[in-house]
Amino acid sequence: MTNLINPTDIDRDTPVPLYYQIAQILRKKIGEGDLTQGDQIPTEKDFQDHLNVSRSTVRKAISELVYEGLLVRRRSKGTIVANPPIQEPLVGFGSFSAEMRERGFTPKSKLLECQTIPASANVQEMLDLDEGESVLFLTRLRTVDDELVAVEDLYAPSKYVPGFNRSDMVEEGEQQSFYYILKEKFGISLYRAFDTISPAILNSEAAAVLQLEEGSPALLRTRISYDEQDNPVMYSSGLYLITLTIDLQKQTKFPESQRRT
Amino acid sequence: MTNLINPTDIDRDTPVPLYYQIAQILRKKIGEGDLTQGDQIPTEKDFQDHLNVSRSTVRKAISELVYEGLLVRRRSKGTIVANPPIQEPLVGFGSFSAEMRERGFTPKSKLLECQTIPASANVQEMLDLDEGESVLFLTRLRTVDDELVAVEDLYAPSKYVPGFNRSDMVEEGEQQSFYYILKEKFGISLYRAFDTISPAILNSEAAAVLQLEEGSPALLRTRISYDEQDNPVMYSSGLYLITLTIDLQKQTKFPESQRRT
Repeated sequence: MTNLINPTDIDRDTPVPLYYQIAQILRKKIGEGDLTQGDQIPTEKDFQDHLNVSRSTVRKAISELVYEGLLVRRRSKGTIVANPPIQEPLVGFGSFSAEMRERGFTPKSKLLECQTIPASANVQEMLDLDEGESVLFLTRLRTVDDELVAVEDLYAPSKYVPGFNRSDMVEEGEQQSFYYILKEKFGISLYRAFDTISPAILNSEAAAVLQLEEGSPALLRTRISYDEQDNPVMYSSGLYLITLTIDLQKQTKFPESQRRT
Repeated sequence: MTNLINPTDIDRDTPVPLYYQIAQILRKKIGEGDLTQGDQIPTEKDFQDHLNVSRSTVRKAISELVYEGLLVRRRSKGTIVANPPIQEPLVGFGSFSAEMRERGFTPKSKLLECQTIPASANVQEMLDLDEGESVLFLTRLRTVDDELVAVEDLYAPSKYVPGFNRSDMVEEGEQQSFYYILKEKFGISLYRAFDTISPAILNSEAAAVLQLEEGSPALLRTRISYDEQDNPVMYSSGLYLITLTIDLQKQTKFPESQRRT
């Protein structure tokens, strides 16, 4: 596999930095399909010996492609060619699983945690709760076509989901959606959601669950969902490895006041 | 400044890990306003000596708060308390500067690059160009209330912006908007935009420009903007340090088909 790059492909007589040349060769191989998703990249040490360059040169080349999303560093598996990003349209506000199914993917949810806990100060604020109120707390690992794409915490005031049972939550199909459960089991229809999307990196715990290196980039996405009486009935906060898309024509007419600016 | 934490505040007789205790004390001080934005945090070495804990314990505590966005590691300035995040609503698709002005902030744009170049294969695809067509290429550093918030590349087909001049781009006010220039100087009104938002981390170049550490998290946001005849007239790709927000009630009615799922 180290013969991925021929030492003679590297030109030591140009001002083009060696790391840049190596990155460029790998980029081209990915672009042309010589390297495809899941393919393992040689270790830094292998590259170093095979190409007779410094370890830091190799590291810099690989880091460039990690930053570009072409390679991904897996825990204990080394560096592999990344999958094309999974895209979710930010529109209409269906559940994550509904969006994915509509796009022909197979989403699944694995329940990691399920308990009733007192709401923290932060959760109290998000869900407009009084001190001492309790919430149902779930942590779910989400996959799309068996690819790990998110780990998500979900909080719902206990008063809205009395008698919720671990077995109410299934791993596949439309019933994996908490929106579905709210509607079918508790008669709560959602009317509005407020999302925030921030840059984040994975701490060691999240990295372990998502099988990525600590420090890998992710989208931190929070959502408060409201019922038809405008009560906040669910707060979720998750680390997502997907690309969000938004088509701003479909959403709103381009306002005249902003047309010029 | 190392007396920020009293060594006796750390309890060595509980099973609660030391790093967690330190993180919790700092979190509380930020929450209660004892530490405010811009305040410098002692170095790892100072903490280590003052609290008599290992360097890795200190590092882990600080990393937790960096992951949570409470602290930020600045290049050559050490670790400081982060600003509250700047939020941009994903709605209506005004220009970044228009959105920020509407929210009472003062956005500015510093032009780092301005030239006409042949379109790369990627830019050709995004802007539906033939091989050999040229584009106006700009790189801008964006600030909000003098805080660095984004570095952004912008490409516009030369054929749509003939005679564009470096001096057409100003740093402040509504004229800093490229949308404004398209409308006022070239008579192009925008009608639609398509955005993607992906997780990213800063490479050394972007980190230097944004005065952050390499590996810091950012949102990679691309936008293709279309004119009223649906021609792609601008492609931008930027690394943003802001939080995007989206209110899904205002956007679209919650579709019946998704209500249940």
